[in-house]
Amino acid sequence: MNLVGATICDGEQPPQGEARDIQLPNTEHVSQISVDVGGSLAKVVYFSRLAGTKGGRLNFRKFETEKIDECIAFISRLLDESRASRPGHEFLIKATGGGAHLYYDKFRDALKVTIEREDEMECLITGLNFLITEIPYEVFTYSEINPMCFEETPADPFPYMLVNIGSGVSILKVTSATTFERISGTSLGGGTLWGLLSLLTGAKTFDEMLEASQEGDNKNVDMLVGDIYGSDYSKIGLKSTTIASSMGKVFKKNVDKRQFRSEDISRSLLYMVSNNIGQIAYLNAQAHGLDRIYFGGCFIRGHPITMNTLSYAINFWSKGTKKALFLRHEGYLGAVGAFMKHRSSRRNSRSFSLTEHLAQKLAATELADLEVTLSDDTLDVVAAEESD
Amino acid sequence: MNLVGATICDGEQPPQGEARDIQLPNTEHVSQISVDVGGSLAKVVYFSRLAGTKGGRLNFRKFETEKIDECIAFISRLLDESRASRPGHEFLIKATGGGAHLYYDKFRDALKVTIEREDEMECLITGLNFLITEIPYEVFTYSEINPMCFEETPADPFPYMLVNIGSGVSILKVTSATTFERISGTSLGGGTLWGLLSLLTGAKTFDEMLEASQEGDNKNVDMLVGDIYGSDYSKIGLKSTTIASSMGKVFKKNVDKRQFRSEDISRSLLYMVSNNIGQIAYLNAQAHGLDRIYFGGCFIRGHPITMNTLSYAINFWSKGTKKALFLRHEGYLGAVGAFMKHRSSRRNSRSFSLTEHLAQKLAATELADLEVTLSDDTLDVVAAEESD
Repeated sequence: MNLVGATICDGEQPPQGEARDIQLPNTEHVSQISVDVGGSLAKVVYFSRLAGTKGGRLNFRKFETEKIDECIAFISRLLDESRASRPGHEFLIKATGGGAHLYYDKFRDALKVTIEREDEMECLITGLNFLITEIPYEVFTYSEINPMCFEETPADPFPYMLVNIGSGVSILKVTSATTFERISGTSLGGGTLWGLLSLLTGAKTFDEMLEASQEGDNKNVDMLVGDIYGSDYSKIGLKSTTIASSMGKVFKKNVDKRQFRSEDISRSLLYMVSNNIGQIAYLNAQAHGLDRIYFGGCFIRGHPITMNTLSYAINFWSKGTKKALFLRHEGYLGAVGAFMKHRSSRRNSRSFSLTEHLAQKLAATELADLEVTLSDDTLDVVAAEESD
Repeated sequence: MNLVGATICDGEQPPQGEARDIQLPNTEHVSQISVDVGGSLAKVVYFSRLAGTKGGRLNFRKFETEKIDECIAFISRLLDESRASRPGHEFLIKATGGGAHLYYDKFRDALKVTIEREDEMECLITGLNFLITEIPYEVFTYSEINPMCFEETPADPFPYMLVNIGSGVSILKVTSATTFERISGTSLGGGTLWGLLSLLTGAKTFDEMLEASQEGDNKNVDMLVGDIYGSDYSKIGLKSTTIASSMGKVFKKNVDKRQFRSEDISRSLLYMVSNNIGQIAYLNAQAHGLDRIYFGGCFIRGHPITMNTLSYAINFWSKGTKKALFLRHEGYLGAVGAFMKHRSSRRNSRSFSLTEHLAQKLAATELADLEVTLSDDTLDVVAAEESD
């Protein structure tokens, strides 16, 4: 497996809400599959051959955890294909996330392969380190004026904070390629928004909810400072348009509840959850002296209002000193991390962890001089001047 | 006005959700009224005579802001009584909160008295300082084992943090009787809980919502760590009973939404809002090095689950180093503060601010030696050995 020339496949439009494949033009066929089973979604990363070339792609697929059988059937088909091309080879699946434990027997019995479980937090960080340091045009900042401003690969990516927003939220402090700590979290995450909106608006999919929020006006349901004061509360710097109370206009005894539009409620709750995560992220970043804050997880889904709200919150609270960073494969950090943990990625002890080694190289070498190759079964990272 | 012997009237049961009167056995009749008009509730504090004695009481009443006319009619009746007993006297009302601005003309035109507006944050602090330092058995800590453990008046109450939870939440850092700063806040407050529950459960009053929450079991709607992992995630210290995602069990495509009980939703959202406020409070207390955290505002309403959740959050996040403190007149800090700003409470420059002076005295004197008197129209604070 050779990663030289790894790029995101920008030419083709992926299905809505899915991440783009990563092209690996110089990689022989490897039969690696990983899965990250969260509370709401199961994410699969696998390698596929590109017919007629020697290269292939990293593919990204997600399934609802409540339909875990669909996910298992999908992996089963992948394994059948791999078995056909490599008869006699013993395959294994790397699995992470809570579902790697909850559904362990189910996976093992259905797929008849070895399931190796990897720690969820470790996978998140391994995956993120790989994407940060290896994949060009992966990391970006968001603003309304410049929706996707790509970041250059940092000379030294550490320390940073990861805010992973799935059903719930985990906040990790990462100080080197191998040292990290879960410093905080909140139960007010994607599952909260999806649960509330499915009850309040009847929306049946995340995309319906996000579309509705784009049409909504939160001030029809949120109580603004101006609704309480009639103006700004300038003495303490609160503008009349600041949200004083999310959904604060709803509880009035003599109001017909049907007057509140689904779109407005969707916008309000999306703001509420995103703002709140942004604020808690900032407070933790401040407490630990971290300036770079990566937001990952399937909550974000590349949605403009969500990213704008998270960016705004970080910028507002930190007075511009801290930066919200987003990823094009935000939902697949854990699955990518589990993928990187395949034995083929660590047989060579020098490169047990791709990023561990990379960090050393990055510290010593100009970025442009760096090449990353995964030779057939061994991960290898070399500076360009050392490689041929 | 003489405050010697000021006590909370514990003998009589106040109407549900109302604060107990404060008895002032040695105070002549004074005609002071203050009002704090928030986004959802208008709080009134006024003095009333106790027939047949020379003393009286501080009374506490609240009204829904959307029915502000009821509040105005109530104050109008109080003024009529006062005018009858002091003909010719020019009355004035102290008003604070956003509604003091939004409804200023309405109050002035209906009541035909001078309305003096006072800054909301300043009133909160003035009121809180008064209650902390003057009223015995006002401040308490909460735990399930010891629901109301009263605090002794602190020798030096500063610095502390106030988390005022009304429709929205304001977080203030208070470093002396006269210096404070609004350091943070969140739009996820009482208005959010009331708004969401009125839509989701059809409950018509706060009390209905709180009662329902007492019957509910949040694990029917919340996704717990155990629902994702099948067990604890012990490596990072998450128990299987920890809430991973509030309302995270609701969004399932093939589930009849009617199966989710109002009681369970009420419990879940009460936990969610209280936990979140507790977490943001802790993070701010940590950032500013504050160990004493007072929770005020009409959200709390003396409700056991709410106080328990806030206490638990502060204790959990701070590993026991910080303390959640509650107040029996929690909803009336602003109104009490506005009341204290009546001219009669500051004619004497030595005691312009009751608590400013008190803080000096408290630093110099044993608590038991302290007497507080408000002579007819002048506030005076003296140590017992100086008074007769």
